Amino acid sequence: MKTNHCKIVDCTIRDGGLVNNWDFSVDFVQQLYAGLNEAGVDYMEIGYKNSPKLLKGAEEAGPWRFLNDDFLRKVIPQKGNTKLSALVDVGRVDENDILPRSESMLDLIRVACYSKDVDKALALVQTFHDRGYETTLNIMALSNVMENELLEAFELIKESAVDVVYIVDSYGSLDHNDVKYLVEKFKTHLPNKRLGVHTHNNMQLAFSNTLVAAELGVELLDASVYGMGRAAGNCPTELLVAHLKGTKYNLRPVLGVLEQLMVPLREKEEWGYILPYMITGTLDEHPRSAMALRSSEDKDKVVDFYDKLTTPEVNFDK
Amino acid sequence: MKTNHCKIVDCTIRDGGLVNNWDFSVDFVQQLYAGLNEAGVDYMEIGYKNSPKLLKGAEEAGPWRFLNDDFLRKVIPQKGNTKLSALVDVGRVDENDILPRSESMLDLIRVACYSKDVDKALALVQTFHDRGYETTLNIMALSNVMENELLEAFELIKESAVDVVYIVDSYGSLDHNDVKYLVEKFKTHLPNKRLGVHTHNNMQLAFSNTLVAAELGVELLDASVYGMGRAAGNCPTELLVAHLKGTKYNLRPVLGVLEQLMVPLREKEEWGYILPYMITGTLDEHPRSAMALRSSEDKDKVVDFYDKLTTPEVNFDK
Repeated sequence: MKTNHCKIVDCTIRDGGLVNNWDFSVDFVQQLYAGLNEAGVDYMEIGYKNSPKLLKGAEEAGPWRFLNDDFLRKVIPQKGNTKLSALVDVGRVDENDILPRSESMLDLIRVACYSKDVDKALALVQTFHDRGYETTLNIMALSNVMENELLEAFELIKESAVDVVYIVDSYGSLDHNDVKYLVEKFKTHLPNKRLGVHTHNNMQLAFSNTLVAAELGVELLDASVYGMGRAAGNCPTELLVAHLKGTKYNLRPVLGVLEQLMVPLREKEEWGYILPYMITGTLDEHPRSAMALRSSEDKDKVVDFYDKLTTPEVNFDK
Repeated sequence: MKTNHCKIVDCTIRDGGLVNNWDFSVDFVQQLYAGLNEAGVDYMEIGYKNSPKLLKGAEEAGPWRFLNDDFLRKVIPQKGNTKLSALVDVGRVDENDILPRSESMLDLIRVACYSKDVDKALALVQTFHDRGYETTLNIMALSNVMENELLEAFELIKESAVDVVYIVDSYGSLDHNDVKYLVEKFKTHLPNKRLGVHTHNNMQLAFSNTLVAAELGVELLDASVYGMGRAAGNCPTELLVAHLKGTKYNLRPVLGVLEQLMVPLREKEEWGYILPYMITGTLDEHPRSAMALRSSEDKDKVVDFYDKLTTPEVNFDK
């Protein structure tokens, strides 16, 4: 099945920053950009464009958490074909920080929100659209959204300026049947919008689900090199580059990035198929409980962890 | 889609033994059996039933490489519902070693072969069948078999006594479309046989491919706890136990096995999604070159490795 309509959005710095508090050196990011550009990857999401004024703990984070255009111009003095993207969260972005696209290094601004905030997210999208950016809307935690709420969101999205609407498997709990179901639903209700997909690898299904979405016509495919991303991580960029049919991606530069940057980094930082994340994925839950466990002395006590999450009287949340 | 016709065949000891030369203690195997039995896993493949007389290096391997019935009776004095299986290779098994099933701990004997040896494999199958065992035929390296050879094999298999015929993704190079294609082909040509699937995880597709096969009617699903198996390893048992629909598997005892046995073992032994295995999977090749690389000082030099495998004048094999 053809997948040559697809574009890869590499999220290593943005989603990977959730692992190491965006502690990537400028040299690291420059090497990554060069490798992705040589590989033919379409977009590099180089961080968040939230405002440090609107977030706690901002002073400890690396510069990729609060991208600044002057800084970015120094990091990437010579842009290649790989476009640059930034993510913003509803309620955490100051619109005054966003230059017109003609004065910015960024090409794409993506707005992440929960389904209840789609109206606010679309207002931001309109602003960025008016300033000349490509835009996406990334509705998170779809596996926990009721149908009626989603249908209401579709009504707003259909009439909006947004270019691409994302299916986001925040908890890594979807399988290929779920992906098919969601893609068909989005295609039916949003026939005038292009689609994207962002997966997590809690059940080792991130790559497979992304391929299934691609074959069904989804265009923007999120990935990260070596799967680096929060908790179980994402669809590995190297697998998409190697396997999308009829595309002109080149695996070798991605292998260079893996060898030089990512394998050494994985020695220091943790992400991927790790059992507590498998458990939260299986239970269709946010990985925060598993992340807390992995930071504790009991990090490998998976039976106790499973018992806590599955005992109703303990887990009041369920 | 229903998958409650499926049975799990846990291959941790047999395929995992290819990682650690079958260096599992009796206590380890007993704990694993107890956990799998409590979890409701249908079969445990407890090793190979090849003959040490027919193999080099036999004296260094653990006892699970050359299963002996007297020994097995001591290991599993009290059998539960989980049946026991052993694998044999064509040309490496002495038929005189195989007791009648009524005198053996084993329930299932599986015969692995390349497609050119299907006739010899089926002769062994007939012997084991006559001695009362359930039997399977596991045709390896299907991704490198030409259609005409496969069709000839089907003619022999159709008339044989074998109960289950396996689709084996030896190189971890198949995606969900390939699995669909093969399952449909096997179903068309072998309507009187049940099917099985054995996957490898080179491209993080082992679980996904197994789920796809299960939904298409494949009955016997090979897996191993934490995916332990040669090179990139197999479909993780814990994921099947957690996700097969309409079955009565219990995840908790598998988590116990993971916590007590497999996570500590993974600290000492290596298997899983490791880049050289991803590369051989992508190139549809046997992982032996990648296994050699991982045993060398250059184990993380993936760009050179990729160049060697993809440069025709270096790789005469291509």
